[in-house]
Amino acid sequence: MRTLTVELGERSYPIHIGTGLIGRADLLRPRLRGTQAMVVTNEVVGPLYLERLLPALEGLEVETVVLPDGEATKTLETVAGIIDRLMAARFARDCALVALGGGVVGDITGFAAAIYQRGVDFVQVPTTLLAQVDSSVGGKTGVNHPAGKNMIGAFHQPRAVIADVATLDTLPDRELRAGLAEVVKYGLIRDRAFFEWLEGRMEALLAREPDALAEAVERSCRNKAEVVAADEREAGQRALLNLGHTFGHAIETGLGYGTWLHGEAVAAGMCLAARLSERMGWLAPEARARIEALLARAGLPTAPPPELSPARLRELMAVDKKVQRGRLRLVLLRAIGEAVVTADFDEAALSAVLEAAREPA
Amino acid sequence: MRTLTVELGERSYPIHIGTGLIGRADLLRPRLRGTQAMVVTNEVVGPLYLERLLPALEGLEVETVVLPDGEATKTLETVAGIIDRLMAARFARDCALVALGGGVVGDITGFAAAIYQRGVDFVQVPTTLLAQVDSSVGGKTGVNHPAGKNMIGAFHQPRAVIADVATLDTLPDRELRAGLAEVVKYGLIRDRAFFEWLEGRMEALLAREPDALAEAVERSCRNKAEVVAADEREAGQRALLNLGHTFGHAIETGLGYGTWLHGEAVAAGMCLAARLSERMGWLAPEARARIEALLARAGLPTAPPPELSPARLRELMAVDKKVQRGRLRLVLLRAIGEAVVTADFDEAALSAVLEAAREPA
Repeated sequence: MRTLTVELGERSYPIHIGTGLIGRADLLRPRLRGTQAMVVTNEVVGPLYLERLLPALEGLEVETVVLPDGEATKTLETVAGIIDRLMAARFARDCALVALGGGVVGDITGFAAAIYQRGVDFVQVPTTLLAQVDSSVGGKTGVNHPAGKNMIGAFHQPRAVIADVATLDTLPDRELRAGLAEVVKYGLIRDRAFFEWLEGRMEALLAREPDALAEAVERSCRNKAEVVAADEREAGQRALLNLGHTFGHAIETGLGYGTWLHGEAVAAGMCLAARLSERMGWLAPEARARIEALLARAGLPTAPPPELSPARLRELMAVDKKVQRGRLRLVLLRAIGEAVVTADFDEAALSAVLEAAREPA
Repeated sequence: MRTLTVELGERSYPIHIGTGLIGRADLLRPRLRGTQAMVVTNEVVGPLYLERLLPALEGLEVETVVLPDGEATKTLETVAGIIDRLMAARFARDCALVALGGGVVGDITGFAAAIYQRGVDFVQVPTTLLAQVDSSVGGKTGVNHPAGKNMIGAFHQPRAVIADVATLDTLPDRELRAGLAEVVKYGLIRDRAFFEWLEGRMEALLAREPDALAEAVERSCRNKAEVVAADEREAGQRALLNLGHTFGHAIETGLGYGTWLHGEAVAAGMCLAARLSERMGWLAPEARARIEALLARAGLPTAPPPELSPARLRELMAVDKKVQRGRLRLVLLRAIGEAVVTADFDEAALSAVLEAAREPA
């Protein structure tokens, strides 16, 4: 087992990464304060892993909520339903919520924990690659609004993250690939050596070699933990983690949540960011080509879906949370391993990149 | 004008208290970061004060939301409606919400600000005595659940509190009296001199003498600001501010929100807390009598409504947020000016106090 710590003073917490961690009471119990725990999972993950998790909660008063699968569940109504269950079971302020599932389950559960009684504890037990390397770490919680992704939420740090890479055995190929988009992202924004490691190990990751997966999860979490510790509330460098996300959210919203997976949209978004960076003279053409090649090897899209017009994409980007004083800010690349947040991009270059992306490469 | 500061490091903020402050751009504008502001008010306060406030926002993109009056509005659905409006107007993360109204408007607006895009700025412009002395200061925001008051919420500090005591001119007598319950509370929990000042000035306050009101608001806010600065998240002494509130919330929930005003329920709750403290030998009978006498002079109830049975009250108290590891904790009095939070009360004494309160004094 590998253990990292997200350093946030009194609210610091461990990330445990390894095989067979899901039922280990010794990891979970010391992070719980009260005697009541609610496990939130979904109809896909629950049947696979709930029985493995429950022994870690033996002796507590345990409630279980099983949500429908998919991004469409990530609404304020779902959170209200969880709160109804907490109220019905009379869960007290020292209770804990345990998120067993992917990013959607984690975001919903964390947000319910953030607002129930003005904040109760929660633990992340991520079962997808995307959740293990990204969404379970850092305290961003929330749900979607019909007009924009993650527009309702809170910063609320978990008490622990327990990433059992054995759960990736049952992950569909498409979701494994989508998770790799966020893994590649860490290399792009701040860890060139990791990007190069990924260039060497992509096929091993796709073949689910356990050592490769554990290494990728650990290096991703280490990058994320460092960024979060330095900038919990996204005042500065944390925004770099959104590389590809402004484009990606526009794609997800435009297609309707869940048509493309989040990681797929982010992969296409990172390619658009790379092309815009190249067109502005910031990024070398060879670097842009390496980025597209690695994402293509991961089986990820490198362009937005043709049914979304450039005008529609640009419109959807305007509701992004990074808009400040009316100006859209984007994360762009100076090199592989070096990203910047900027409002100082060329609107004409952006249009040209969105137009060009419609044509077959 | 009197100005206090709530000391919370980078998130410190001013409380301005005085007459004619509501339209002063010099107080409001330096606290706003972006160019978009949404004023949230209700159908009673809006017609009286919105026109006075708007000049302070001149030059900004301003949206206005007018809610129905009353505690029944304080729901997650209302917050969702405000977020719909923010999304429709494409308000960015650097926007601000301005709460113009009483505690209900402030709690709703603050919570909407807490969860919109994971937190945007808000300013409190309280127009009731209750809001000026209590709910606008300290960052507790939230809404009610059908099964319990304030069960959904967040800690989210305002950027400023602008308490214009001129707005109290239009406050109904009943609401003025309800606000005085929280004023008396500060004397009871930590400021004996203030309690004695109130014994001398209660009639002046009921007659709305401006100097008396400003003094009462300032001394109340000073007490609250000190408590909040020492314990923002209610890990310790902040819980003392809940004197009378566990009983009071049970009364409000039992009758249905809005039947009794919050302050009325708290007044009855403080009397119950005083009687329980007396029965346990903690509080002198003369002190208990002085408390009841002062609240009675303020025209406030000193016992719960007869239609709520002791058993029903006790049941409703069990869902209080202060329950820890299954044990109810109560704020009780050692003396006028000295309160303690304790789970160490006598359940039989509590029953006896609830029973005795049903009989005419």
